[in-house]
Amino acid sequence: MKKAHIISIGNELLIGDTVNTNASWLGGLLTEQGFYVEQVSTIPDSYDLIFGNVKSSLVEAKVTIVTGGLGPTHDDITKKVMVDLFDTELIENNEVLDFIKSIFKRRGFEFSRSNAAQAWVPKNCDVLFNNKGTAPGMWFEEQGNILVVLPGVPTEMKFLMEERVIPKLHEKFPDREAWATQYFKTSGVPESTLSDHIGDLNEFENNGVGVAYLPGVSGVTIRISANGLDVKQAEGKLETLKNYLYDKVGAVIFGEGKNLTLEAVTGKLLSDNKLTIATAESCTGGLLSSKITDIPGSSVYMKGGIVAYANEIKEGFLKVSKKDLEKSGAVSKIVALQMAKGVAEAMNADIGVSATGIAGPDGGTPDKPVGTVWMGFWIKGDHFALKTVLSNDRLLNKERTVMIILETIRRRLLKLEELPYQLKPQTV
Amino acid sequence: MKKAHIISIGNELLIGDTVNTNASWLGGLLTEQGFYVEQVSTIPDSYDLIFGNVKSSLVEAKVTIVTGGLGPTHDDITKKVMVDLFDTELIENNEVLDFIKSIFKRRGFEFSRSNAAQAWVPKNCDVLFNNKGTAPGMWFEEQGNILVVLPGVPTEMKFLMEERVIPKLHEKFPDREAWATQYFKTSGVPESTLSDHIGDLNEFENNGVGVAYLPGVSGVTIRISANGLDVKQAEGKLETLKNYLYDKVGAVIFGEGKNLTLEAVTGKLLSDNKLTIATAESCTGGLLSSKITDIPGSSVYMKGGIVAYANEIKEGFLKVSKKDLEKSGAVSKIVALQMAKGVAEAMNADIGVSATGIAGPDGGTPDKPVGTVWMGFWIKGDHFALKTVLSNDRLLNKERTVMIILETIRRRLLKLEELPYQLKPQTV
Repeated sequence: MKKAHIISIGNELLIGDTVNTNASWLGGLLTEQGFYVEQVSTIPDSYDLIFGNVKSSLVEAKVTIVTGGLGPTHDDITKKVMVDLFDTELIENNEVLDFIKSIFKRRGFEFSRSNAAQAWVPKNCDVLFNNKGTAPGMWFEEQGNILVVLPGVPTEMKFLMEERVIPKLHEKFPDREAWATQYFKTSGVPESTLSDHIGDLNEFENNGVGVAYLPGVSGVTIRISANGLDVKQAEGKLETLKNYLYDKVGAVIFGEGKNLTLEAVTGKLLSDNKLTIATAESCTGGLLSSKITDIPGSSVYMKGGIVAYANEIKEGFLKVSKKDLEKSGAVSKIVALQMAKGVAEAMNADIGVSATGIAGPDGGTPDKPVGTVWMGFWIKGDHFALKTVLSNDRLLNKERTVMIILETIRRRLLKLEELPYQLKPQTV
Repeated sequence: MKKAHIISIGNELLIGDTVNTNASWLGGLLTEQGFYVEQVSTIPDSYDLIFGNVKSSLVEAKVTIVTGGLGPTHDDITKKVMVDLFDTELIENNEVLDFIKSIFKRRGFEFSRSNAAQAWVPKNCDVLFNNKGTAPGMWFEEQGNILVVLPGVPTEMKFLMEERVIPKLHEKFPDREAWATQYFKTSGVPESTLSDHIGDLNEFENNGVGVAYLPGVSGVTIRISANGLDVKQAEGKLETLKNYLYDKVGAVIFGEGKNLTLEAVTGKLLSDNKLTIATAESCTGGLLSSKITDIPGSSVYMKGGIVAYANEIKEGFLKVSKKDLEKSGAVSKIVALQMAKGVAEAMNADIGVSATGIAGPDGGTPDKPVGTVWMGFWIKGDHFALKTVLSNDRLLNKERTVMIILETIRRRLLKLEELPYQLKPQTV
């Protein structure tokens, strides 16, 4: 297999300011592409260390990906090292310069001299045009080995890898060993339960299929991968396992694909069924409506939402009963139910959902500990609430509540029997 | 300064299953302890690569920390490499063996042979007793340099570092240099502009003070660091630069501290001034109210919000004029202004803010390209709107809009002259 090295440049990585998520992402992508990632070196913004590490990786690995040090300030020296390493010179790239100028003009910023420098590139490289930022990526070839230099900003690095580098790698190395990977995204089931239901996979693993459980925001992702003489053969190996997985745990798989989100899948279900939705949020504070509206085209199904943080807002906007608020408290089944129905009616939506809870880290009582959440659902008259107790981590509680709500909508629309985490629907 | 190297062993790190948070944590800790972390190498569970990397780090660095490969399964080979590297043998450590047996007994597990093997350690090492797990850490000394080998499980690694390794490092290197670091968080100014305004820092850098610009969600963070004979001296060196920074760019510094957020600072300003706020969001979809409510205690100042995704919601809930919606469109100054005032009045809040724009990636027109955002502000009668054009990245547009709004509130409450990105307030 062709070896790959990753070099992450940046003092902030070494002193613990930033976690090296770039290397992890790159490692996963290169592995999928059939490369053997032999090494990740994280080094400072130091001329000597960059020079030395790049020089040796360029010899040892077929593909070396370098990230970092391409910004406009004085500690960004990666480009200078490349010029010296290849004994070349910098030339101005007009396309990049124009692009940088247009970014600044559009935003109304002053174009600074240090930004102009980002348009100068080593003469011997192929420029990888960066639509997401001011620093272009660079592709070098040396004695059959490839060196790719990218900005360290994650969104820009990922864009350049996916849109520019991967196609060039396909061109350069057309007959790599084929590697096929598939991702099955689940929600509403813990890893240990999922693994128990799936059971022993030795038969598949002995046939060269790798299986991994990856934790994630919306739930556990099952990753299966196999190699083969060509893509067809590799994918063929996965087909049997895929069928097996759907047979065992199909209900909790909301879709396939590494980057697939629960909000996209639920959104599509709403759109396919021509349903509209409105949200009433207290403890989640707007995160639910924000996730729903992260999806382009969500205006088709999303009417809007109320963030009813203060109780008077719950009363005034959602018609929650003052008496019930006083009697049962905001974090209660009755209030969750009223919020869900209230927002659906106020916004004339087919579906209303609500979240009211104790986000934490403080605010709990023996009766209602931190992490207690009631989620209300009004799905065209189907009116119920779910209760769970999460953790004392405020931000995680918000995220998890949002995901449980989205998964509940998904399962209800698909008429699946079980709800996330086997929660039981409660009515008035 | 004494050099430190970190070697992280584990296939899962290279194929992207696990992010290398251990290295980040270790880097931060070693830096605080006055070491210069020169390199992190992440390598597979491969005999040759472990041998080669440990051997060279042991020569190049005063302290090398190795994590991983100490588990009970067949791919855990780190200890074998150590035995060969030091040309020594394994001996059974009774204290560790008894401890492992007691763990298993207590949990009711069957004690396996592979677990017994974890009690065997290289003859030439100091055992670092691991109360948190079955694999002890190991401390080796070779020609004045230190090699520490720890399990990769984060809780165990951190325990061993803090409880066993740090005390031994203090003993071994009693007169290390002290290190001080400070973080200044800015918002509303691009890195190049910030760097230009701060100017030449040679004078400080020649005095041993390092400066770095770190990009982040809310804006650029300026990190300054210095070493000295003791902490007092190190901090003293930073004092002058700190004053210089406040003098040059004080207005854009919203606070100090690595993890400080703009929403926390703005929230505190609202709370200190006894002001309440309500949000009216279209394109940001709830992200603004979600960020505000991420802060514990935000219920003191946050009344709530309306996510007015559909135009009828803008009309019905925010009293936006149907005529103006039809005439100027939802993404316009007049609608942003009405939304801000409308929500403040509807929720009886001192401050109302709004965001209406084209989040993307589609939906633009020549007149209003993707990324066009109008942000409305009603701050106790002070009524104005800001306009900017961001990018075609939907999620980034939402984030950036939220940060511009929070920073605008902050600067307005502090009566600072300039608004973020030099945007000009526009009125009816």
